[in-house]
Amino acid sequence: MNAQTKISTGAEGLMANAIRALTMDAVQAANSGHPGMPMGMADVAAVLYNRFLNIDPSQPKWPDRDRFVLSAGHGSMLIYAINHMLGYADMDIDQVRNFRQHGYRTAGHPEYGHADGIETTTGPLGQGITTAVGMALAERMHNARFGDGLVNHHTYVIAGDGCLMEGISHEAIDMAGHWALGRLIVLWDDNKITIDGSTGLSTSTDQKARFAASGWHVQEVDGHDHEAIAAAIVTARADTRPSLIACKTIIGYGAPNKQGTSATHGAPLGDEEIAATRTALNWPHAPFELPAEALEAWRAVAARGKATREAWEARLATSDKAADFNASLSAPDADALTGAIATYKAQLSADAPKVATRKASEMALAVVNATLPNTIGGSADLTGSNNTRTKGMEPVSKDNYGGNYIHYGIREHAMGAAMNGIALHGGFLPYGGTFLVFSDYCRPAIRLSALMGLPVTYVMTHDSIGLGEDGPTHQPVEHIASLRAMPNLNVFRPADVVETAEAWEIAATARTTPSLLALSRQGLPTLRTEHTAENKVAKGAYVLRETDGARDVTLIATGSEVEIAVQAADALAAGGVKAAVVSAPCFELFAAQDADYRSTVLGSAPRVGVEAAVEQGWAALLGDNSAFVGMTGFGASAPADELYEHFGITAEAVAKAAKSLIK
Amino acid sequence: MNAQTKISTGAEGLMANAIRALTMDAVQAANSGHPGMPMGMADVAAVLYNRFLNIDPSQPKWPDRDRFVLSAGHGSMLIYAINHMLGYADMDIDQVRNFRQHGYRTAGHPEYGHADGIETTTGPLGQGITTAVGMALAERMHNARFGDGLVNHHTYVIAGDGCLMEGISHEAIDMAGHWALGRLIVLWDDNKITIDGSTGLSTSTDQKARFAASGWHVQEVDGHDHEAIAAAIVTARADTRPSLIACKTIIGYGAPNKQGTSATHGAPLGDEEIAATRTALNWPHAPFELPAEALEAWRAVAARGKATREAWEARLATSDKAADFNASLSAPDADALTGAIATYKAQLSADAPKVATRKASEMALAVVNATLPNTIGGSADLTGSNNTRTKGMEPVSKDNYGGNYIHYGIREHAMGAAMNGIALHGGFLPYGGTFLVFSDYCRPAIRLSALMGLPVTYVMTHDSIGLGEDGPTHQPVEHIASLRAMPNLNVFRPADVVETAEAWEIAATARTTPSLLALSRQGLPTLRTEHTAENKVAKGAYVLRETDGARDVTLIATGSEVEIAVQAADALAAGGVKAAVVSAPCFELFAAQDADYRSTVLGSAPRVGVEAAVEQGWAALLGDNSAFVGMTGFGASAPADELYEHFGITAEAVAKAAKSLIK
Repeated sequence: MNAQTKISTGAEGLMANAIRALTMDAVQAANSGHPGMPMGMADVAAVLYNRFLNIDPSQPKWPDRDRFVLSAGHGSMLIYAINHMLGYADMDIDQVRNFRQHGYRTAGHPEYGHADGIETTTGPLGQGITTAVGMALAERMHNARFGDGLVNHHTYVIAGDGCLMEGISHEAIDMAGHWALGRLIVLWDDNKITIDGSTGLSTSTDQKARFAASGWHVQEVDGHDHEAIAAAIVTARADTRPSLIACKTIIGYGAPNKQGTSATHGAPLGDEEIAATRTALNWPHAPFELPAEALEAWRAVAARGKATREAWEARLATSDKAADFNASLSAPDADALTGAIATYKAQLSADAPKVATRKASEMALAVVNATLPNTIGGSADLTGSNNTRTKGMEPVSKDNYGGNYIHYGIREHAMGAAMNGIALHGGFLPYGGTFLVFSDYCRPAIRLSALMGLPVTYVMTHDSIGLGEDGPTHQPVEHIASLRAMPNLNVFRPADVVETAEAWEIAATARTTPSLLALSRQGLPTLRTEHTAENKVAKGAYVLRETDGARDVTLIATGSEVEIAVQAADALAAGGVKAAVVSAPCFELFAAQDADYRSTVLGSAPRVGVEAAVEQGWAALLGDNSAFVGMTGFGASAPADELYEHFGITAEAVAKAAKSLIK
Repeated sequence: MNAQTKISTGAEGLMANAIRALTMDAVQAANSGHPGMPMGMADVAAVLYNRFLNIDPSQPKWPDRDRFVLSAGHGSMLIYAINHMLGYADMDIDQVRNFRQHGYRTAGHPEYGHADGIETTTGPLGQGITTAVGMALAERMHNARFGDGLVNHHTYVIAGDGCLMEGISHEAIDMAGHWALGRLIVLWDDNKITIDGSTGLSTSTDQKARFAASGWHVQEVDGHDHEAIAAAIVTARADTRPSLIACKTIIGYGAPNKQGTSATHGAPLGDEEIAATRTALNWPHAPFELPAEALEAWRAVAARGKATREAWEARLATSDKAADFNASLSAPDADALTGAIATYKAQLSADAPKVATRKASEMALAVVNATLPNTIGGSADLTGSNNTRTKGMEPVSKDNYGGNYIHYGIREHAMGAAMNGIALHGGFLPYGGTFLVFSDYCRPAIRLSALMGLPVTYVMTHDSIGLGEDGPTHQPVEHIASLRAMPNLNVFRPADVVETAEAWEIAATARTTPSLLALSRQGLPTLRTEHTAENKVAKGAYVLRETDGARDVTLIATGSEVEIAVQAADALAAGGVKAAVVSAPCFELFAAQDADYRSTVLGSAPRVGVEAAVEQGWAALLGDNSAFVGMTGFGASAPADELYEHFGITAEAVAKAAKSLIK
């Protein structure tokens, strides 16, 4: 055994070694997985849970629990081992034995919703730490509304070198320092090893100085010295700044011949090394068998958490804020919103304003924010362009966690991940804005919104060449298609002020599917001048204008191009061609309708699709006898009207395409 | 006039004020644009160009020129104004007058290729500074090969607060410090203003401490004090570390009533304020008219650059490395590679190995790297998984710029942007690897590769649920579709070792289109056992197996699913159904073939598409009488074979789908 290795002793030492043993055995059984991180950070985790973390496995969603985020998600066996030993009902030993196998909760990386006690999905590096920033901010915002008696918990993160190398970590660190999130404590697995070898191959950053530069409290400890770890956590909790604790660890700690090397990172140790580890750790137990003392120590953590939770329940029972508190954690009042939006829509249809849908979004948000008290708006430094801040919203800051508008800064990626964290924490409905083209900057966070099924809304304005002079770097062309390709994301592209209101009604009340609104910079007329209480966007696509008699052609468009389709239909009508116009603001919702509805809307006549974007993704709405009017390459810099002409996205072009299809 | 405002005097002051005047007048004429940055940084730019920058407008691509990158690309008028005054032939005053208008080179953000003297496309924040890191590294790598006499230049960047808030900046800074890129000098427009208002709304990071933490040399100057700016640049050039110079500036400097506020950031100043600015700057000239003294001063910069370039030409003429130097900057030897790949393919078809295409990529790269001397490999810390490092490659480091393999670290985004910078600098053919799912992390950089048309290759392995146990966070489902949606990007998904070699032949010799290879983790049999000298992948799709007589059905597949299609064809044949198999490794190249070829390949029989991904993007290869076997949602964590069974991507499912289509 390497002279550097100390064997942890006592019950807490057994707690740590139990993590190591379950990890190496589960990875070996799966013949795949990552033993290095859980074995290296077992001591830190044992101390954190044993002495600090308040969670109750019998009530995994208890709102005032501490949050634990395993940002280094490849070390998933750490959390599976712990949750098994804590006694989570859905994490029996069979789950651990079948790590990474089909039909089990013990996925390769921790998946939110697969098992209790997993606060967020991690694996894509840097997401966990940034999601945790959102959680820690939500804790303070919820605290500002309900006080210390009901909201008073910490957010702990285990992060690895990868998390700190990813760019998103800069955005996270900057935010957390700026918001003075003193209850956020990041335990960095400072083991000097990445997959390719030593961290010295690729980085020279002094992480402690870097965190300090962003207003963090910083410490360094021996990550195998339990008392030092505990002392550091105590100090971190006492500081008003977010805390980084650099835990100097040995990756794969306990495996005498492989520890300290990247060989332990992402592959089973092998039978021989596992046997040697058992000897080194003085762990005579068979695979997946645990000594009673270790199990008892872990169960004591659960018992402490349960008692804390029960005391909290007693406080809630006598709180005069109990009803509001519970409401904040429940589904938003969809009926109230439906009523408010219906009233608003009636007025819109009467007024028929010509506004950009980004402006229409602001108008709809005024209704949403007035009706649902827990929305949290924001923008990645484009507030005046995204129109995300409605009247009366106040900025969230370290001096005012009671605010409800977040200046996310020029940090789209962290905005997405923080919104995920806010949604996961509970108590709030987050939405945030940027330009649609910068959806690329936050795409990994959007994907986690979708994978976890979170109620998060992305407000993405300047959604086509219609933004004009800013040119190709700012003009989305492929983004709508690329977002529609993502499972479980509703992409809305409303055509006017009414559709925008309807899209917002759906987005604000969705529970398991995130929404993304693609909104125009340019003004658009109200096309839905006839009021309907029905939310037509909810069906994804609908006939905006039917023909008198059998259709000769069906024009299908989205967003700013619906106006063009209507103009084309007028022009065709003048020439005796009967063209129906279908508005298709949400392909995903349309795909979810029954076949009868879909075929009624699409009709049997030839079809022309119109969207100022690439055609990809339109196949389900078109078919063999069809044409598409849109973009085939990148945009250009010029006034919007000239670009529409230049790229041939005009009523004339649509009418011509329609005629070419009619036999 | 604000008491804070000093009026720059002398010729260099006129140089700066000329930038201000052209900027405010051009933005006003366009009625759109961003005057704040060019006016705020005009003094810094004037000093930089006047006293340091070596460029020759008469030879814009002179290889040893200094590189200037306007990372804050919204300030595009800065570079248009300068390039006009320097005398770039393609930047006459008419271009400036028609800023942001259709058909002019003066796009809203600087677009590489639109006009000379624009070293890279900027606008998406943080890309410029990171691309510049790639340029500065390329300079050192080129210097290591050809010496100080031929390669000896600096890379200067103007970056704004947005660039430094974006996460990618962390990756860039970490890299530059690690590689000790002492010739990289970043001039930070430290004006304390973003679009939403004060930077204090969203950030508290001490940027100077942050850069210092990553090994940078850091200074701060008054950005309107010419001598101080010059002294700082002198000091920065003398230091062996990359340098940050925090230039304390006033945004919109010179506009007496609006300067120092976000009102100057992204909107015209207005006629009244422009008149006031003329007075304040003592600038009596009409819009777009320049005093001779200013123009002469700028032309002197050009003359100095020309003399420097001519001295360099003389050195090149007598250098014994001239031939190699010129070759390094020319197109790679496609004929040599074609020959080498043909020989290699013949052996492959004979050997018929069963290897993952990620391994096949390594094998092909051995041929590519042996034939083309200027490839620069790398991986975002997944070298052993991406198989990107071939035998004999040596890591690039601050101690060995002569290496040819880059450990990019866990920094996919900066890897992409740095590869763009390496390609833009010239002298090298960069390729870099990560998992396909993490294409999302570098998508903004991939988009710039495509928009600029750069010869950059992305090696993206673990390309489907076939990666198995790592689970849904690591399994690409929508990524192939989302990448195919991007204009001017060739997405290759080769089916076997032969197709992988052919894809690499195309990628390594492409000049104006970046390539992305989607490669399997799992082993795949050699399907192309019959050797052809022809590169079949070049046609995008081809008939891998034709039927004897008229087809009953055509099975079209890519990558790892071609094997499944072949198995399905066998099963169908046993039942008397004639199924052709089409391999479609590159949809983009197939779309570029003539209609005859495409219809011959696709045939008139019903079609079944097979790809372990979402269907989106397949429309062009399928049609109304078709079926698709693939994914409709996120993946799961389990061994690959079980996942293929679970998600129904099997030969049986393909055969069943085929039969259902046959009348």
